[in-house]
Amino acid sequence: MWLDGALIPEDDARISPQNRGFLYGDGCFETVRIHGGAPFRLDAHFERLRDGLEVLRIEPPWSVEDLRQGARKVVETNGVVEGLVRMTVVAGERSTTRGMATITTRALPEIPPQPALHVAAAVRRLSGPLSQVKSISRAAESVALREAEAEGAFDAVLLNERGRVVETTARNVFLVSGGALLTPATYEGALPGITRSAILEIAVGAKIRARETSVSLDRLRGADEVFLSGSGVGVLGIASVDGHRLDAPGPVTQKIQDDYATLLGLDSKW
Amino acid sequence: MWLDGALIPEDDARISPQNRGFLYGDGCFETVRIHGGAPFRLDAHFERLRDGLEVLRIEPPWSVEDLRQGARKVVETNGVVEGLVRMTVVAGERSTTRGMATITTRALPEIPPQPALHVAAAVRRLSGPLSQVKSISRAAESVALREAEAEGAFDAVLLNERGRVVETTARNVFLVSGGALLTPATYEGALPGITRSAILEIAVGAKIRARETSVSLDRLRGADEVFLSGSGVGVLGIASVDGHRLDAPGPVTQKIQDDYATLLGLDSKW
Repeated sequence: MWLDGALIPEDDARISPQNRGFLYGDGCFETVRIHGGAPFRLDAHFERLRDGLEVLRIEPPWSVEDLRQGARKVVETNGVVEGLVRMTVVAGERSTTRGMATITTRALPEIPPQPALHVAAAVRRLSGPLSQVKSISRAAESVALREAEAEGAFDAVLLNERGRVVETTARNVFLVSGGALLTPATYEGALPGITRSAILEIAVGAKIRARETSVSLDRLRGADEVFLSGSGVGVLGIASVDGHRLDAPGPVTQKIQDDYATLLGLDSKW
Repeated sequence: MWLDGALIPEDDARISPQNRGFLYGDGCFETVRIHGGAPFRLDAHFERLRDGLEVLRIEPPWSVEDLRQGARKVVETNGVVEGLVRMTVVAGERSTTRGMATITTRALPEIPPQPALHVAAAVRRLSGPLSQVKSISRAAESVALREAEAEGAFDAVLLNERGRVVETTARNVFLVSGGALLTPATYEGALPGITRSAILEIAVGAKIRARETSVSLDRLRGADEVFLSGSGVGVLGIASVDGHRLDAPGPVTQKIQDDYATLLGLDSKW
């Protein structure tokens, strides 16, 4: 891994228990898809990281070029061809001290044959500026994921303070309803995902009507198709929402999966 | 410090960058006041910790007695007479692995002569089950504190999703209005603070009318007295809220400060 400028074996890497990431979840991260040994739309991730650090009022401890080179070294050293690279940036120990960053790689997640979604009951997500930041303060998402796992589901859908669908614990959600492609709007708290944005572009090219909007739980449950998007899962058809069964992947999901595979080949580069 | 069962120098202590506390803010903590070398109401902290771990669905990696002995060793080894001890418990690296815990001590915070409160503009706090947990996912609180510091304020007041006053970044808030003592209710998202609870008891003994209720920002700004409560600050009179000046500490605040000092002497023990 890359630990604040140095390449070291992950088993030897240690951080301080006074790290503000550990004490207060005070930082943000990006998880980038590596395809053919190169990152998918890395610059878009850096733009979101920069925006996130600005909302969090954290001064970047490393430049984008430092992080790019660090990520490249870790990916190449670990021989990652298809996988993920995670960059984490946290605040310094006092507001006056420099923050720190880590870069690690990991395998793509294992996907069950019939991925089910659970709707999180105990926790909700607040919409607003912080919902647009991929912060490491993810206690709500952690609880929702454990809730989903207890129900045998792959992931959990989070609702916002108005009971509207936001996204899952780490992925955006899309639904197909009456031939149109819908995804919860950022004003409802959805993170502006890099894969989500690629899918909205794909829909334009494929002449699929697509829009960001407000999505109720009834609308999600009654959809013709539901899929998730994210760096890890790509485009993943969902087989059931809270027990309501769906055909997965449906025809629109399949078309988008195919076009995303093509885009992944075109837009993965250092 | 105490690191998962072992007493080691804090400078030597290191945690894994795969720790779920660092990756996802997936854990909770307690900060306990040490007075005369002993903790104030330690059992109440353990009860809240147990409730927090239950909401977070984290299995406690250590028993209450292990943590009590760990805290005592750290406090005694560090020779803390007046100060704070923090216990942090986080989830394991995978949901099936055992969590981990750390215990550290630190000095009481420095208090400025005329403590000012800023009202956080960029972030809000969502009320609900997770608001009752002192989780380490505190990105919103970290942003609010940096906002306050940029305005020269000591701390920031957080509002909930309905615009009601909740608490500050790490302390409960009280106001005195028309002779009555008010504090935001837990249903508005206020953490059930240990010092807060002691103050509500003190009010009963001192025949001060006190209640938990819904508090608007106008009510806070128009209060006769405002004070914060917490393990670190005890009972702290506030000299201004968003520029509105107040006499600090006012007569009710002073009475509660005196009674809290007495209670601190009575209820601090291992």
